[in-house]
Amino acid sequence: MKELVHGGDIYTAREQQKNKTILDFSANINPLGLPDSVKEAAVRGVAESAHYPDPLCRKLRSAIARAEGVPESSIVTGNGAADIIVRLVMAKMPYRAMVLAPTFAEYEAALTSVGCLVQRYYLSEGADFSLSEAILEEIGPSLDMLFLCNPNNPTGQLISPELLHKILWRCEETKTLLLLDECFIDFTDDPESNSLKARIGQYKQLFLLKAFTKTYAMPGLRLGYGICGDAALVDVLWNVGQPWSVSLPAQLAGIAALDESEYLTQAQQMIGSEKRVLADGLRRLGFRVWQPAANYVFFRREAGDSRDLRALLLEEGILIRSCENYPGLDNRYYRVAVKKPEENQQLLSALAATERERK
Amino acid sequence: MKELVHGGDIYTAREQQKNKTILDFSANINPLGLPDSVKEAAVRGVAESAHYPDPLCRKLRSAIARAEGVPESSIVTGNGAADIIVRLVMAKMPYRAMVLAPTFAEYEAALTSVGCLVQRYYLSEGADFSLSEAILEEIGPSLDMLFLCNPNNPTGQLISPELLHKILWRCEETKTLLLLDECFIDFTDDPESNSLKARIGQYKQLFLLKAFTKTYAMPGLRLGYGICGDAALVDVLWNVGQPWSVSLPAQLAGIAALDESEYLTQAQQMIGSEKRVLADGLRRLGFRVWQPAANYVFFRREAGDSRDLRALLLEEGILIRSCENYPGLDNRYYRVAVKKPEENQQLLSALAATERERK
Repeated sequence: MKELVHGGDIYTAREQQKNKTILDFSANINPLGLPDSVKEAAVRGVAESAHYPDPLCRKLRSAIARAEGVPESSIVTGNGAADIIVRLVMAKMPYRAMVLAPTFAEYEAALTSVGCLVQRYYLSEGADFSLSEAILEEIGPSLDMLFLCNPNNPTGQLISPELLHKILWRCEETKTLLLLDECFIDFTDDPESNSLKARIGQYKQLFLLKAFTKTYAMPGLRLGYGICGDAALVDVLWNVGQPWSVSLPAQLAGIAALDESEYLTQAQQMIGSEKRVLADGLRRLGFRVWQPAANYVFFRREAGDSRDLRALLLEEGILIRSCENYPGLDNRYYRVAVKKPEENQQLLSALAATERERK
Repeated sequence: MKELVHGGDIYTAREQQKNKTILDFSANINPLGLPDSVKEAAVRGVAESAHYPDPLCRKLRSAIARAEGVPESSIVTGNGAADIIVRLVMAKMPYRAMVLAPTFAEYEAALTSVGCLVQRYYLSEGADFSLSEAILEEIGPSLDMLFLCNPNNPTGQLISPELLHKILWRCEETKTLLLLDECFIDFTDDPESNSLKARIGQYKQLFLLKAFTKTYAMPGLRLGYGICGDAALVDVLWNVGQPWSVSLPAQLAGIAALDESEYLTQAQQMIGSEKRVLADGLRRLGFRVWQPAANYVFFRREAGDSRDLRALLLEEGILIRSCENYPGLDNRYYRVAVKKPEENQQLLSALAATERERK
């Protein structure tokens, strides 16, 4: 069977908890939930689903291009960002690629599925899991692809715009395709300066990955996209994989989501303050906490604390992400999503209770 | 951009017809449309879509296994049957494969995308586009995969159970994986005898492809599955591609669809009689018509008739499938879906009108 390596698996949790309701902190999605307008659009999509979806996603593609301020020819849509990753590696068939460790597991999974040699670039706790200029030395002509995630998942650390530009420069020189995952960029304090979107068009080796999943809380509908200035590569991607990868409900939901304006601003404000509340609360409970850049907080048990927090919280119906299966991490590390104020307090209280029991 | 090579593209048709309503005969789906219970289940799926779908599709998988009478370990689900095709070729990475010509274009597209050498086995009009024992000679140890579609699309011709068994025997001997597409089998007069489902478990080289798309008229939701007795191959397939290929609305819709009983029987009855009405009507209009086994009718203009039927009908808001882009066919061949009685009459009347104008 398939291995379950990700957060968001409320199904196993429900089984383990005999179908109790699960409060899910293990998936990093917008705490405001699915907007009504998006839900209504998806329901219209269901009603029309006796038709095939448009393989070209014409209306959705032009809506994304407008919202992102990039040409339509630079956009490719998929069945979630994970689908874009798979199609990109199928299109490029790289011999050698580099991924960070720890990072989102699907980059390496997709690369190895096409026989690519994957080199891991380990981030160290001593350097706060941050990327430094040392990575520039690793980028050479024999490196076909480099996968970065900004902010990185699960550590929540941003790569500075200066370093990103240097990396991009180097990738252009060595013809190394840079897959930059910006799925969480809209939840950072300053998305505009953090994103490399403005560089699309200037740099052929830049491929940005984005998703509706997190931004609009619609992981169940499956919708992601890539942005790349290399129109020839975008064309290849449209033709890799099946013709109807994006369902009709997802296409209509995506178009409706891009019409939402207040929703995203509200979410950004809530995340901006709540990520601090959650980080401070975790610190007060004695955890080592890394400064969260987006809508999730990465933390670690201190030496001498051997609690299995995931198991203890699951007994209370709360699901958090153990980072045990990330290369470079172990069972002392956890990631929790930033949710609504009352939910975050519920998590902190449940953690405090396990702390009291320990003593 | 992506090439549009399939039926069901109502979007281009709408553009060409200035958004007039399109009566779509170009996609072979159940004429009864999406059942209400399935629609309602998909809408429930939308409401829950702030959660990730279950990557293992546990409830759906066990519902399919029950409905098909096969072990759960033999089932793999995907984002439409087309997704299963892509994942199967990624899992097998075949060097040499054979497909029929004409047939569904996605087999060859998927195979060439992984660099496979694809050999076409041309069916001849002289033999009514039927498969004969001659194909057995083509199956040898150097053939990694053989793709068959039963009944074949677009010709609508069944392969006899006897010949299928011989092919399957030969494939077992030569370790050639037989992808047998049975997406239309439930619309034939005797699905039980036409299907090789009962052979799952006996034959490791048999991989059956099925879809909810056609059977339950839900192409917009994207849901298909494979059935294979080789549990190791099924396991590999679950791990090829992304973890969340089947959306939440599709998972719930699929479970609800399998609870429908009357719907499928009604559709089978309607198709059983209407395919004859449509075939006879087309014959009376002077076309060469092949006996339809399932819910679509394949026909050809006679010599001296140079009408562009697709274009003429599109002016009337009716979309049919020109078979011009199928290898082995040309612009004289067409395929139309069997729809409801009044719709089929509308098609026949519109065709009769173009006939009168010609004279």
